[in-house]
Amino acid sequence: MRIYFDSKWHDEEVRISVTDRGFMYGEGVYESLRTYNGSLFAPQKHFNRFKRSSQILGIPFKMDFEEFKSILTEGIEGIKEDCTIRVVLTNGDGKRPVLLAYIMELQAPPSDLYTYGVDVGISRLRKIDESALPPLLKTISHANLMIAREGKENFYEVLMLNSAGFVAEGLMSNIFLVENNTLVTPSIDTGILDGITREVVIDLAKSLEIRVDERLVNVDELFNCSECFLTRTSAGIVPVRKIENRSVFQDEPGVITQLLMENFRPYIFQRSDLW
Amino acid sequence: MRIYFDSKWHDEEVRISVTDRGFMYGEGVYESLRTYNGSLFAPQKHFNRFKRSSQILGIPFKMDFEEFKSILTEGIEGIKEDCTIRVVLTNGDGKRPVLLAYIMELQAPPSDLYTYGVDVGISRLRKIDESALPPLLKTISHANLMIAREGKENFYEVLMLNSAGFVAEGLMSNIFLVENNTLVTPSIDTGILDGITREVVIDLAKSLEIRVDERLVNVDELFNCSECFLTRTSAGIVPVRKIENRSVFQDEPGVITQLLMENFRPYIFQRSDLW
Amino acid sequence: MRIYFDSKWHDEEVRISVTDRGFMYGEGVYESLRTYNGSLFAPQKHFNRFKRSSQILGIPFKMDFEEFKSILTEGIEGIKEDCTIRVVLTNGDGKRPVLLAYIMELQAPPSDLYTYGVDVGISRLRKIDESALPPLLKTISHANLMIAREGKENFYEVLMLNSAGFVAEGLMSNIFLVENNTLVTPSIDTGILDGITREVVIDLAKSLEIRVDERLVNVDELFNCSECFLTRTSAGIVPVRKIENRSVFQDEPGVITQLLMENFRPYIFQRSDLW
Amino acid sequence: MRIYFDSKWHDEEVRISVTDRGFMYGEGVYESLRTYNGSLFAPQKHFNRFKRSSQILGIPFKMDFEEFKSILTEGIEGIKEDCTIRVVLTNGDGKRPVLLAYIMELQAPPSDLYTYGVDVGISRLRKIDESALPPLLKTISHANLMIAREGKENFYEVLMLNSAGFVAEGLMSNIFLVENNTLVTPSIDTGILDGITREVVIDLAKSLEIRVDERLVNVDELFNCSECFLTRTSAGIVPVRKIENRSVFQDEPGVITQLLMENFRPYIFQRSDLW
Repeated sequence: MRIYFDSKWHDEEVRISVTDRGFMYGEGVYESLRTYNGSLFAPQKHFNRFKRSSQILGIPFKMDFEEFKSILTEGIEGIKEDCTIRVVLTNGDGKRPVLLAYIMELQAPPSDLYTYGVDVGISRLRKIDESALPPLLKTISHANLMIAREGKENFYEVLMLNSAGFVAEGLMSNIFLVENNTLVTPSIDTGILDGITREVVIDLAKSLEIRVDERLVNVDELFNCSECFLTRTSAGIVPVRKIENRSVFQDEPGVITQLLMENFRPYIFQRSDLW
Repeated sequence: MRIYFDSKWHDEEVRISVTDRGFMYGEGVYESLRTYNGSLFAPQKHFNRFKRSSQILGIPFKMDFEEFKSILTEGIEGIKEDCTIRVVLTNGDGKRPVLLAYIMELQAPPSDLYTYGVDVGISRLRKIDESALPPLLKTISHANLMIAREGKENFYEVLMLNSAGFVAEGLMSNIFLVENNTLVTPSIDTGILDGITREVVIDLAKSLEIRVDERLVNVDELFNCSECFLTRTSAGIVPVRKIENRSVFQDEPGVITQLLMENFRPYIFQRSDLW
Repeated sequence: MRIYFDSKWHDEEVRISVTDRGFMYGEGVYESLRTYNGSLFAPQKHFNRFKRSSQILGIPFKMDFEEFKSILTEGIEGIKEDCTIRVVLTNGDGKRPVLLAYIMELQAPPSDLYTYGVDVGISRLRKIDESALPPLLKTISHANLMIAREGKENFYEVLMLNSAGFVAEGLMSNIFLVENNTLVTPSIDTGILDGITREVVIDLAKSLEIRVDERLVNVDELFNCSECFLTRTSAGIVPVRKIENRSVFQDEPGVITQLLMENFRPYIFQRSDLW
Repeated sequence: MRIYFDSKWHDEEVRISVTDRGFMYGEGVYESLRTYNGSLFAPQKHFNRFKRSSQILGIPFKMDFEEFKSILTEGIEGIKEDCTIRVVLTNGDGKRPVLLAYIMELQAPPSDLYTYGVDVGISRLRKIDESALPPLLKTISHANLMIAREGKENFYEVLMLNSAGFVAEGLMSNIFLVENNTLVTPSIDTGILDGITREVVIDLAKSLEIRVDERLVNVDELFNCSECFLTRTSAGIVPVRKIENRSVFQDEPGVITQLLMENFRPYIFQRSDLW
C-alpha cells in the first residue's frame, strides 16, 4: 500500500497522532476513486463530492482540483494494475486538517462473478435518516455500516432500506432493478448517496434508449423484478443472481443487465468529461 | 496528556497506523470516566458499558474488570487534580483490537456556571434512530454529533430530539426537567444512552423522596418545566438557565435542582458500589 | 343484515344523522366478533378491547360486559350460519355516544383456500406510526387502509410494514412465519394490534410445544421463511401460498401450519375463558 | 344548518344509511369553504383540492366546476352572515358515491382575538407521515386529530410536529413565524396540506416585499421567533399571543402580522382569480 500523508507519498507504514480528531471522533470525510487502464476515473466528480463532504462536516479544504489531481496522478505512477484510491480528510487537531490518500488493490469481485452474479442480503439495520445525518456526506464514521452486515456475512453485498422501509442502497454500492423493460433505481430523495457509477449507468441507459425510473422503490419490487444489478466505482456493474433466497436469474444475467455491462467500458472511455 | 497504548502508559505523543480500522472506518468504541478526589468513579459500570459496546460492534474484548481497573489506576497515579479518562477500543487491523486510554483535564464547566447555570439550544439534527444504530453503543463514529452543533455554537450544550421529535439527550449529557415537583427525564426507550450520572441522580432523587417519571418527553415540556438540569459524568449536575431564548430561572437554580446538587457528592461517596 | 341501533335490533335499513361525529370526523371505534357453532367467540376479550378503544378516543362507554353480551346474544338468535358481528361506538352529537352493531355474513375465505392457500402482497403504504396514532385503537377512520390496497387488488391480503420498515400486519389479519421450526410473529411493540386470534394461536402453539418468537420481523424473513400463515377473527388460520411472486409452498401448507390448523377448533372449544 | 344531500338542499335533519362506507370506514373526503360578503372564496382552488382528494382515495367524482359552484351558490342564497360550507364525498355503497354539503356558522374566533391573539399548544401526537397517508388528502378519517388535542383542550389551536419532529401545522390551520423580518413557514414537503389561505398570504407578503422562506422549521424557532400567526380559511389571519407558556407578544401583534392582517381583505378582493 502506498500512502499520501504530510504532503508526500510513502511506501512504508504511516502513523498518525492518536489525538487526531479523525481518530478520536470519526471527524473526517473520504472518497474512493479507481483507475481504468491506469487513468483516474471521474476525478472531477469525486473531487466535487469530497469538497461537498468537507463542507457539510465543516472541515476546511482549500486545495483546488488541479492540485488534487496532480497528487493522485503522482501516487499512481508506475502502478501496473488498476487500483482503488481512498482519499481522506480529517479535522486534524481542530486547526490544521489532515489530508491522506491510500492506494490499494482494486476492490472488485473476481471476474467470474460478472457472469455468475452475486448474492445480496437485506440488512436488519436501516440507513441513517437524513434528519440525523446528511446522506450526501461520505464520512469515515462508519459504525452503522459495520453492524449492518450482522448475520449477513455470507452475502457479497447487503441492501439497506431507508428509515421508512424503502429500498435505499447497498453498503458499498447502488442498486438497479429491471421491471417491464424499465430500469428502476432509488431516487436521491430516498436518502442515498449520488453514486458516480450510478449516474454514469443512468446516462448510458438513456443513450441506449432504455427507460429509467428514479423513484421510491418498495420492497415488493425485490420479489418481482426481472433483473437486478449493483453499481460501484471499484466494480462497475455487477449482476445480482439472488436476493436473499429469491433467485433473480438462473443461467445468465438478464438482457438489459448484459447490454449495460457490454457497453459500460466503451461508453465511459468515449465520455471526455470523465477523465 | 498521558496515553495508554501498546500495553503501557506514555507521557509523550503516541501515534497509530493510518490503516487502523478505528481511524479508517470509525470502527471503535469508547467510554469516558472521571475521578472524584483521585478515585475512579463507577469503574464497574463504565467497564460493563464498554464491554457491551464492544460486543455490539463485534470487537473482541477479553480483558476482565480487575485488569481494566488496574490499568486505569496505574494511569492516574500521581495526578493531583480530578481528571477525565477516555478509554477506546478499536478493531485494529481486523485481527488484533487496540486498546487506548487518554488521561485528560476534567471536561467540567467553570465553577460559577454551577450557580449561574448554562444555556442549552435545540439541535436541528435528530438523534440517529435505533433502527439505524443501537443507542447503547458508544462509538467513536461521531460525525452526526459534529453537525448537530451547527448554528448552535454559542450554547453550552445542544439538545437532540429523537427520530420522532421527542426530547432525547444532549450531545454530551442527559437532561432532567422538573414539573409539578416531579423529576421528569426521557426514558431509555426514547433511544438514549443510559448515562451513569443520570442513573445515580435518579437513585438520589428517590432516596430524597422526590417523584421520578421516566417517559417520552414532548417538546412542549421544554416550554413549561419549572426547572431543568443536565447530568454528565465529568460535570455531575449542571443547572440550566435558559433553553433557547426561554428563561428557566432568573436568580438561582430551582429548589429541587439545588437539593440534588447539594446531596450529589455526599450521596455518591456513601455508595460503596460506585468505587 | 340485522342492525342494532337506538337500543334495539332492526331487520330493515337503518339511517343515522349526517351530523353524527362518527360520520363527519370518523370519531368512532369498532370491534369485529364472530360466532363458532352459533356461540360468540371471545366476547370478553372483544369487549375489553372495545372499551380500551373508546377510552383512547375519549368516547364515554358505560355499558358493562353482561349487557354488551346480552345485546349481541339477542342479535344472533335464530341465525343458523356462523356470522360476523361488527360493533361500533361513535361520539354521536358530542354529548350522547351512539352504539351500533351489524350482523353480517362471515368474512371468511372460501373453504378451498384453507388447503390451497392465499396470496399476499406487500403494501407501498406504511402503518401509521404509534407517535401519530395509538396502534391499539380500532377506529373507523380507515382511510389509510383503503389506499394501502392500491396496486395490490389481486391479493387476498396485503401486508403493511411499520414506519421503520419492519413487517407489521395485514390490513385485516396478523401474520406468522415459520423459521427453523420456530413460529415467528411481529411483537406488539412493532406497533400492531394485539389480535385475539393471534393471541390464541400463540397459546395453542405453546401448548403443542412449538417455540414462539415474538419480535421485530425484518423483510428478509419474508424471503426466507419456510411457512407462512395469517390469523383473523373471522377466518381463523389461513395458510399463505405466495408472498408477492415468491412461492412459500407448492403442494400443501407446511407441517406446523397444518398442525395448528387441525388443532385450532378443538383447542378453542376446550378453552372455557373464550366463551 | 342547511344540508345538501341526494341532489337537493334540505333545511331539516338529513340521515344516511349506516352502511354508507363513509360512516363504516371513514371512506370519504371533504373541503371547507367560506364566504366573504356573501361570495364564495376561492371556489376553484377548493374544487381542485376536493377532486384531488377524491382521486387519492379512489372515489369517482365526475362533477365539473360549474356544477359544483352552482350547487354551493344555490345553497348560500339568502344567507346573510358569512358562513362555512363543508363539502363531503363518501364512497356510498361502493358503487354510487354520495355528495353532501353542510352550510354552517362561520368557524372563526371572536373578533377581539384578532387583536388580543390566541394561545397555541404543541401536540404530543405527530402528524401521520406521508409514507402512511398522503398529506394532500383531506379525509373524514380524523381520529388522530381527535387525540392530538388531548391535554391541550384549553388552547385555541394545537400545533403538530411531523414524523421527524419538525413544525408542521395546526389541527385546523397553517402556521407562520417572523424571524429577522422574514416570514417563515413550513414547506409543503414537511408533509402538510397546501392551505389556500396559506398560499394567499404568501402571495400577499411577496406583493408587500416581505421576504418569505418556505422550509423545514425546527422547534427551536418556536422559542425564538419574534412574531407568529395562524392562517385558516374560516378565520383568515389570526395572531398568536403565546406558544405554550412562551409569550410571543404582550401589547399588540407584531408589525408584519399587523401589516398582513390589514392588507388581507383588500388583497383578496382585488384578486379576481379567487372569486
